[in-house]
Amino acid sequence: MAIAVAGPEIERLIQLLARLPGLGPRSARRAALHLIKKRDALMTPLASALQVAIDKIEVCKTCGNIDTQNPCTVCTDPRRDPSIIVVVADVADLWALERASATNGRYHVLGATLSPLDGVGPDDLTIDALVARAHDPAVGEIILALNATVDGQTTAHYVTDLLQDANVKVTRLAHGVPVGGELDYLDEGTLSAAMRQRTLF
Amino acid sequence: MAIAVAGPEIERLIQLLARLPGLGPRSARRAALHLIKKRDALMTPLASALQVAIDKIEVCKTCGNIDTQNPCTVCTDPRRDPSIIVVVADVADLWALERASATNGRYHVLGATLSPLDGVGPDDLTIDALVARAHDPAVGEIILALNATVDGQTTAHYVTDLLQDANVKVTRLAHGVPVGGELDYLDEGTLSAAMRQRTLF
Repeated sequence: MAIAVAGPEIERLIQLLARLPGLGPRSARRAALHLIKKRDALMTPLASALQVAIDKIEVCKTCGNIDTQNPCTVCTDPRRDPSIIVVVADVADLWALERASATNGRYHVLGATLSPLDGVGPDDLTIDALVARAHDPAVGEIILALNATVDGQTTAHYVTDLLQDANVKVTRLAHGVPVGGELDYLDEGTLSAAMRQRTLF
Repeated sequence: MAIAVAGPEIERLIQLLARLPGLGPRSARRAALHLIKKRDALMTPLASALQVAIDKIEVCKTCGNIDTQNPCTVCTDPRRDPSIIVVVADVADLWALERASATNGRYHVLGATLSPLDGVGPDDLTIDALVARAHDPAVGEIILALNATVDGQTTAHYVTDLLQDANVKVTRLAHGVPVGGELDYLDEGTLSAAMRQRTLF
């Protein structure tokens, strides 16, 4: 794809950068050049930050979060409510909920959503571990924070079925108008869900 | 900007990735997560590729190109025509010309274009070194491959003036219709330049 114009070491760097999401071959070249020009200010710190991450980052054995401690910061935080488990598909979703300070509960990362077309079945998700956690008497509510897509909702139904024997309340995120959103630009499904689930003003 | 949701090591990695051109805070988070998930396949190779680049890459003392050897591969390639020096503003432009196999000559990287508004003056560019190279009797032509912007053309005029004492032909890139371009979408300046500089069919 990229024609070798620089030495093989630079080409290798460009090829690896191009595999990052959001960077194509052209922007990877620009990024490599930027790094080389800012060797002390950026390239050296980035190399060592990557090495630190390689050495230290682990997957939390309780919830599946990514952290430098195991169990992770969220699981060991005594201020978090142990009775709530928020189920997410991916660590990125966990991060998004944390940025929003959306919950005081703890998490469970499934790792993916069910997707028969992509060959993702129940065994590829950490559903067994979730069911085991749900049977802990300290847990009272499981919040399904899954994408409002077909795969996400299929996964939500599947998980809900398996949680029926556990003594927990299973909830899911509300559908509705995004904050700052304009009605004119919303799809019909969102609008009618927002109308059905309207709340007292 | 980014709220700390992961540990400080991951936040540091995200912040450094966000300083790459083409990655904002959000895509830097996605890139960090991608790297962490692909620790062996991507993060470790990237860390070592960066370290190799840090250790090996130098600026060519002849032309200003970036390479792992000094003088660079282009300057030492015996198949390149030593009588032609292609003047570019930046290494990125050199790479672009090399990808296009646009020239068989050697290069001279100015490092920037003159830009009084940004405080970039002649002393910030490697113009003295270019004038010295131009006085080499082996050099017959200096091709100014500078951006067709105000700054690029100002730089071209400035460099041309300083090269008057050297016994070289000074040329510049042609203006015209981009290959694959549609006339309807071209600006007037490009169209009239393409008309003036028309060639025999």
